[in-house]
Amino acid sequence: DYNPDQWSEAVQEEDARLMKLAHWNIATVPVFSWAHLNPAEGAYTFEWLDRVIERLTRAGIDLCLCTATASTPAWVAQHYPDVLTVDEQGRQKPHGNRHAFCPNSPSFRRLGGALVREMALRYRGQPRLKLWHVNNEYGGLWPNYCYCPRCADGFRAFLEQRYGSLARLNEAWSTAFWGHTYTSFTQIDPPFAHGERSIQTMILDFRRFQSASYLACFEHEARILREATPDVPVTTNLMGPFFALNYHDWAQALDVVAWDNYPRHDTPFTEVAFNHALNRGLRGGEPFLVLEQSPSHQNWADYCRLKPPGKLRLLSLQAIAHGAESVMYFQWRKSQGGIEKFHGAVVEHHGRSDARVFREVSELGQELAALGQRTLGARTPAKVAVVFDWECWWAQKASSGPSRDLDYHAEVVHHFAALHAAGIATDVVGPHADLARYDVIVLPVAYLLRSAQARAIVERVRAGATLVATFWSGVVDEDDRVHEGGAPGPLREVLGFTVEEFDALPPELEQGVRFASPLGSLGADVTHEASLLCERLWLANAKPLAHYTQQFYAGDTALTVNEYGKGKAYYLGTRLAQPTLLAFFAAIAAAHGIASPLRDGAAPPAGVEVTKRVSPSGEALLYLLNHGDVPQAVALPAGVYVDALSGETFEGSATLVPRGVRILGAAS
Amino acid sequence: DYNPDQWSEAVQEEDARLMKLAHWNIATVPVFSWAHLNPAEGAYTFEWLDRVIERLTRAGIDLCLCTATASTPAWVAQHYPDVLTVDEQGRQKPHGNRHAFCPNSPSFRRLGGALVREMALRYRGQPRLKLWHVNNEYGGLWPNYCYCPRCADGFRAFLEQRYGSLARLNEAWSTAFWGHTYTSFTQIDPPFAHGERSIQTMILDFRRFQSASYLACFEHEARILREATPDVPVTTNLMGPFFALNYHDWAQALDVVAWDNYPRHDTPFTEVAFNHALNRGLRGGEPFLVLEQSPSHQNWADYCRLKPPGKLRLLSLQAIAHGAESVMYFQWRKSQGGIEKFHGAVVEHHGRSDARVFREVSELGQELAALGQRTLGARTPAKVAVVFDWECWWAQKASSGPSRDLDYHAEVVHHFAALHAAGIATDVVGPHADLARYDVIVLPVAYLLRSAQARAIVERVRAGATLVATFWSGVVDEDDRVHEGGAPGPLREVLGFTVEEFDALPPELEQGVRFASPLGSLGADVTHEASLLCERLWLANAKPLAHYTQQFYAGDTALTVNEYGKGKAYYLGTRLAQPTLLAFFAAIAAAHGIASPLRDGAAPPAGVEVTKRVSPSGEALLYLLNHGDVPQAVALPAGVYVDALSGETFEGSATLVPRGVRILGAAS
Amino acid sequence: DYNPDQWSEAVQEEDARLMKLAHWNIATVPVFSWAHLNPAEGAYTFEWLDRVIERLTRAGIDLCLCTATASTPAWVAQHYPDVLTVDEQGRQKPHGNRHAFCPNSPSFRRLGGALVREMALRYRGQPRLKLWHVNNEYGGLWPNYCYCPRCADGFRAFLEQRYGSLARLNEAWSTAFWGHTYTSFTQIDPPFAHGERSIQTMILDFRRFQSASYLACFEHEARILREATPDVPVTTNLMGPFFALNYHDWAQALDVVAWDNYPRHDTPFTEVAFNHALNRGLRGGEPFLVLEQSPSHQNWADYCRLKPPGKLRLLSLQAIAHGAESVMYFQWRKSQGGIEKFHGAVVEHHGRSDARVFREVSELGQELAALGQRTLGARTPAKVAVVFDWECWWAQKASSGPSRDLDYHAEVVHHFAALHAAGIATDVVGPHADLARYDVIVLPVAYLLRSAQARAIVERVRAGATLVATFWSGVVDEDDRVHEGGAPGPLREVLGFTVEEFDALPPELEQGVRFASPLGSLGADVTHEASLLCERLWLANAKPLAHYTQQFYAGDTALTVNEYGKGKAYYLGTRLAQPTLLAFFAAIAAAHGIASPLRDGAAPPAGVEVTKRVSPSGEALLYLLNHGDVPQAVALPAGVYVDALSGETFEGSATLVPRGVRILGAAS
Repeated sequence: DYNPDQWSEAVQEEDARLMKLAHWNIATVPVFSWAHLNPAEGAYTFEWLDRVIERLTRAGIDLCLCTATASTPAWVAQHYPDVLTVDEQGRQKPHGNRHAFCPNSPSFRRLGGALVREMALRYRGQPRLKLWHVNNEYGGLWPNYCYCPRCADGFRAFLEQRYGSLARLNEAWSTAFWGHTYTSFTQIDPPFAHGERSIQTMILDFRRFQSASYLACFEHEARILREATPDVPVTTNLMGPFFALNYHDWAQALDVVAWDNYPRHDTPFTEVAFNHALNRGLRGGEPFLVLEQSPSHQNWADYCRLKPPGKLRLLSLQAIAHGAESVMYFQWRKSQGGIEKFHGAVVEHHGRSDARVFREVSELGQELAALGQRTLGARTPAKVAVVFDWECWWAQKASSGPSRDLDYHAEVVHHFAALHAAGIATDVVGPHADLARYDVIVLPVAYLLRSAQARAIVERVRAGATLVATFWSGVVDEDDRVHEGGAPGPLREVLGFTVEEFDALPPELEQGVRFASPLGSLGADVTHEASLLCERLWLANAKPLAHYTQQFYAGDTALTVNEYGKGKAYYLGTRLAQPTLLAFFAAIAAAHGIASPLRDGAAPPAGVEVTKRVSPSGEALLYLLNHGDVPQAVALPAGVYVDALSGETFEGSATLVPRGVRILGAAS
Repeated sequence: DYNPDQWSEAVQEEDARLMKLAHWNIATVPVFSWAHLNPAEGAYTFEWLDRVIERLTRAGIDLCLCTATASTPAWVAQHYPDVLTVDEQGRQKPHGNRHAFCPNSPSFRRLGGALVREMALRYRGQPRLKLWHVNNEYGGLWPNYCYCPRCADGFRAFLEQRYGSLARLNEAWSTAFWGHTYTSFTQIDPPFAHGERSIQTMILDFRRFQSASYLACFEHEARILREATPDVPVTTNLMGPFFALNYHDWAQALDVVAWDNYPRHDTPFTEVAFNHALNRGLRGGEPFLVLEQSPSHQNWADYCRLKPPGKLRLLSLQAIAHGAESVMYFQWRKSQGGIEKFHGAVVEHHGRSDARVFREVSELGQELAALGQRTLGARTPAKVAVVFDWECWWAQKASSGPSRDLDYHAEVVHHFAALHAAGIATDVVGPHADLARYDVIVLPVAYLLRSAQARAIVERVRAGATLVATFWSGVVDEDDRVHEGGAPGPLREVLGFTVEEFDALPPELEQGVRFASPLGSLGADVTHEASLLCERLWLANAKPLAHYTQQFYAGDTALTVNEYGKGKAYYLGTRLAQPTLLAFFAAIAAAHGIASPLRDGAAPPAGVEVTKRVSPSGEALLYLLNHGDVPQAVALPAGVYVDALSGETFEGSATLVPRGVRILGAAS
Repeated sequence: DYNPDQWSEAVQEEDARLMKLAHWNIATVPVFSWAHLNPAEGAYTFEWLDRVIERLTRAGIDLCLCTATASTPAWVAQHYPDVLTVDEQGRQKPHGNRHAFCPNSPSFRRLGGALVREMALRYRGQPRLKLWHVNNEYGGLWPNYCYCPRCADGFRAFLEQRYGSLARLNEAWSTAFWGHTYTSFTQIDPPFAHGERSIQTMILDFRRFQSASYLACFEHEARILREATPDVPVTTNLMGPFFALNYHDWAQALDVVAWDNYPRHDTPFTEVAFNHALNRGLRGGEPFLVLEQSPSHQNWADYCRLKPPGKLRLLSLQAIAHGAESVMYFQWRKSQGGIEKFHGAVVEHHGRSDARVFREVSELGQELAALGQRTLGARTPAKVAVVFDWECWWAQKASSGPSRDLDYHAEVVHHFAALHAAGIATDVVGPHADLARYDVIVLPVAYLLRSAQARAIVERVRAGATLVATFWSGVVDEDDRVHEGGAPGPLREVLGFTVEEFDALPPELEQGVRFASPLGSLGADVTHEASLLCERLWLANAKPLAHYTQQFYAGDTALTVNEYGKGKAYYLGTRLAQPTLLAFFAAIAAAHGIASPLRDGAAPPAGVEVTKRVSPSGEALLYLLNHGDVPQAVALPAGVYVDALSGETFEGSATLVPRGVRILGAAS
């Protein structure tokens, strides 16, 4: 991100000089410049941007052009207040902050569209135009749904279309429960914070509606751009596991997935890995872009911690190890004022190129230049999929019960992290993904589970795959109504049991499980920690694997397995701790010949991450990343390897300094 | 609670079959069906309810008919927005959630009244109609007071009536303090959260007014019902110590007290006992009904914990031990959707009768059937009363000072719990109760104390009773104005001292008391823990019993006793811990020959509860309940006893398994 | 504070009697009596106040007359709603609470002004009128800024005047950052909580504007009073370090500084000392008044703790030790009702003069009478200044980053406390203070630093003074824009380095510093605790004093010193703990011959405070105050001393009981 309109031409000249020094080769402009490009209705002032582009072009910098519609100018809000959002308290928010536009505002579409059209026509001939970046981080700071009268009308229309009739809506929403039966669509309001909050399906539908409304904004701009420049890809910067928007729906509208990677200083590397895998999974395993990361601080963190030496490089190469094909920054130059004036940047307030951060950015640029095209176009050959489902997240978040500690997103990450720590290549897929390529399907806390989705899973198991489902799965359908006969609903047959009842454990309460006989490295003579929820099951065909050790249901079955067709279906009736899960998954995967790419399929040492990517030409690259503070040696499979970064050769094992990275290819 | 309108006729047929199996004999219908019975103004659709009633009647199930006015339909809110409440922020709340009606809405009264009249006329001939259940849990989720313009007008009228003149109101409200003197009633608004919060008496009066407004709603419906069916008792389901409504006022309007019992998984049994005693005390010791309890989960708890085996039976028999004459459930069948779809029910989502919960409900039904009429109509022969006063609660809650840890309700429970743990039969009575039957009167934290109320207490002491009053009593009058001469105000003479000053202790600060000479089992050689508040007293006639051990007032008097007429008045100038209080009360009560009904009047073992009930025929039943996790043997007075539940015979002592219950009558 | 309008004439007679007994000699009336003096527009009822004044005068009590405009009457709010404030949520607040007036309300100015004029004309001849007390605690309970349409208009006018043009405002506010460029002043709203919060300079300017608006209210009343009674000083009661109002601006409008001293029971004495020094510094070291303190409780505290015996005297003499020339109380008599009915008072609810509190007030009055004029008119001969700057506080509070634990006010107190604990006389001065009299200038966390302010400091250093600046200084200018070239901005030359980057430490992270060679009592062989922020510096001329011991920058310079002209400039790149700071300051001060007034310039024992005051006649008084719970002996410089309180003589050392005070003058 480059914001030249905050600076003098002299500073811009210095920028061009420093960009070369920093090995920058692409600049995103002009993200927040609507007001500068279009200071009044119908008036455009592109000349300054022409000069910026000319200067960048002259310096050999490619362009990622942003449509600049994210921050509506004050004059728009003043003359067309329908662009202003109404918050969940029902208050119209004054102009200001970020993303201050209603996604269903006609004025926003009209005036924003006009700007986009002007921009597209003006710059469509630019040879260095490589990417369109539409708007910016749609949805803004959560929760940024709009509850204005236009959104309320749009919501009613959305509901009429979804349900067809009031009778169907009343049934889907279970309005009979507290006697809230609607006799007219006009009686329905958005779920204001001080309004109707007792109809969970309404809340779920409002999230569906708002996600679709923002997506329609993107599609509106994208249509204009594609008409003008059919060959330039169009995207927007997603935000990882962003609650407000269902990115599985969005991804179909993007030409390439792109996202902004802002781990906190204490975010576990497995969670960052999950975010990359999530983005990779949005379009079936295609590579993706990282459009933003901070060179150092994130000013909005509780504590602005420095990224220590090597951390920026480590995070950048981690992105590549998971499928990223770009390393981009927010931002080039630290602003002199404004709310993010202490956010990290390549050029800091002192403006010096001998600063630690500038040097690290520059060295990384050099390293990436040396790597060239070698990592591009590759794929991750994963045979294991973990399902992540926005609608399930939304429904569980809206649920009253079973436990205030149950966080869908955290549970999916928890199960992914165990697989990743085992070194097993794992995709994160949406609920409608094609499962044909996967041998092991992990379904954590699939609270909301559609019948059709369940059928596809059952078919894969029947054909030989292994399913691992967990507690609190198959509870409700897409209307948030409990499946007939109770959990696990449409998985009852494949799993081979019915849930009788569940117990939610406060954190101070101990629970454990013991295996009936050893499973992989899991012995039958130890008690493994369990927590969160404990389900009691009526087994039909399922076989018990382990039982509870505490509470009145000590001795009852906690984990099961069911043979089904050519496959197997495992069930975890309670939450297992990381080490247990890691060993459990390693054992399950091994049955399909799936393992880490390291010697003997072993898990990497603690703190070390391993991934494998296979290029279109068939070259396999092994990525080893040491996130820990101590050096590590990693055991390699047979063969001689050359590090694409350092040129060093390894056989038997490879060493990694703290925050060190190796990208190993077979020696030729 | 039975909600057949959520289910098909086939499911309803299955319900009828299962109800017999579960030994159900009464069903509450149709709590939330206003919209289903009255889908538009003047239009009624009772036919489906006719069929439900016919089916229930055929199955031999009695009827508790609910007036269904709790959840206003959406069409009412749409056409008559005066039914909508305004919250304490001044925001009109959209339709939805529970109890979305303003208690001073003319439309609510008119339309709700019309429905009640239709229902009463239609079903008044039903032979199985045993009880009218008006509306549902009035006051809803706290705080549910309404601040709308109609409530504001009503508040002003209430104040004019209460005070007669502005001059009197200005005095009662101490408006001079910050110069808020009113010169017109029209200047007075409800105490909005962002409005006038500095006049505590206004807040107190608004609580009085809102409680009376909701009560007027009840009385409106009750009048209609009593006219139609003069022989069917009318009630509504109260909610234990519910802050918003003064149930001592309400009880006079009910034909029988009824309440909903929802202890959390970690609620101490003494607190549940307090709630039962509170309800028993609402109408002078009359038996009461439990209209709702959960067979297992409460979905709205932080953690949905299972009730372990035996817990439902234990809680049900505990209710009977304190005076309940019914065991009823929310709800029969778990709803498929809606906010409480994970709330416990007799029939769970799987619909099976071999479930643990269903079996426990069924066995309990069988046991109650065997018990027959034997427990009905009995009374608890208590000679000790603890005073609980909603207006005192309201006033103390509104007070600025003396300590953020001072919670009136918690303090009353604290003192009741000590008596109950000692096995001493104790009533909980309101401030206007007839005290003639009590030998010991316990007055915890009677911050707001009316002069007339104090006079009645003083008269009982003069006549021979013992008073135990505590710190922070007799501070203000019914206008929340400090009694002349300071605390303990109108108790100064009977207690024999004046409070000089008080000290509020943060929890980390230690304080203790030491007795001057032994009192019962309380030795003079140990220090007893004290906390919360410490008062320094100027003794007049009172004698010191114990002194403080810490702070600059170490050595000053902490506890006193005063001989007054034929009685005595004790005072606790600080908060004593449970074991000290238990021994203190045991000693005080013993002087009146009051003790536990166990051998030698001893306290029951820890975790065991004992009560006694005497039937109209004179039969005394001893209830022993073991709330602990270990078996207990309880020492019995001389005689041979037969357990009404098991038929077993005991002499000397009775055994109790964990969660076990005995109801012992003298062997004939 | 005396509020006779709450009481009968009989009580007022008793008051007069008790006041003599308590050695009271001045009464503040009638703080909250607007409604009683002016019950309707144009109607005045001063007769009751005439009688009050007559009775006080007769009893020999002087008058501090309050203009009574703080609490707008209900009739004013009803007829002129422009007096009502709008909160930061945009809600108009109903009448009530305290200070319910908008500072830009024309009706408030008009009607309040009329009352003030009536009062001034009526009482201007009163011989006992000693002081005008305008309004009361302006700004009320924080945050009490007003966001009404009149304030919004006033804010726009303020901005037009401050910036002259929109272009200049857009630059100062850095509106380009998120594209919020204004094209008309009418587009600007106040910074509502749900509005524009991303422009920090707007927030800063709104604070400037509101502080000035309240000040204009004061000036309006003061003008009327000064016209009527040119010889009576005019003031208002400030509230110590009160965030909402910039008292450095206010002080110029007061004839004498006055403030209300309400330490909590656990406020460190060094913080109370800071507050006194802050008030003393408001008008260049002039003595000040304490208009309010509580004789015992503060009812609004979480825990109403008693002031133990001697504490009231200790706090009162501490005020005098720092420059106070009055000991006044809120309040004379505890009110019978209202929100503060449990606030401490000289006469408590029981009304007795044999109470502990009454006796302590009375004895203190006697002691002060005996002290006579001896402490009046003196000055504190401080050579060290700590800078405290409201605008810096405001700007840092609005900043996003660097650490949520960074609290400007707490940091200034932290550095002052170390100096005070060392016994070094220290002034607290504003950013525009004349620094000529100071040899050591301490500049903690001067985040916002104006260029002109920096120039004055640099000049003092060049002329021989020592500067001690800390981390996070010189970051932004008065527009909250980062100084060109980065921190320390305009101090770069005098300090001799540039900040490369900073690291914010979460509290659980350890950091330390080690000195390169001993400095005063600070050895080079130990590690000193550091926390909060750590800056990494590029040294130019500065010399390293100490280095970090942890994190990747272990070994890098943490503390520096730079020789500049005839002076020195020290820099603390991180937060040092109290003992380190104390030793550091003692060493720095010693180089200028500055030390504690005790023997050998030693620091007083822990818990003991020492100050020195020099009277116009040249007499030096040494104040020794023991805030601890154990007796202390304090080593005195050579000479014989007499305690002005007890008449005792000391040589070598003076003893202090717990909470004991000595005021020592040289024996004549």
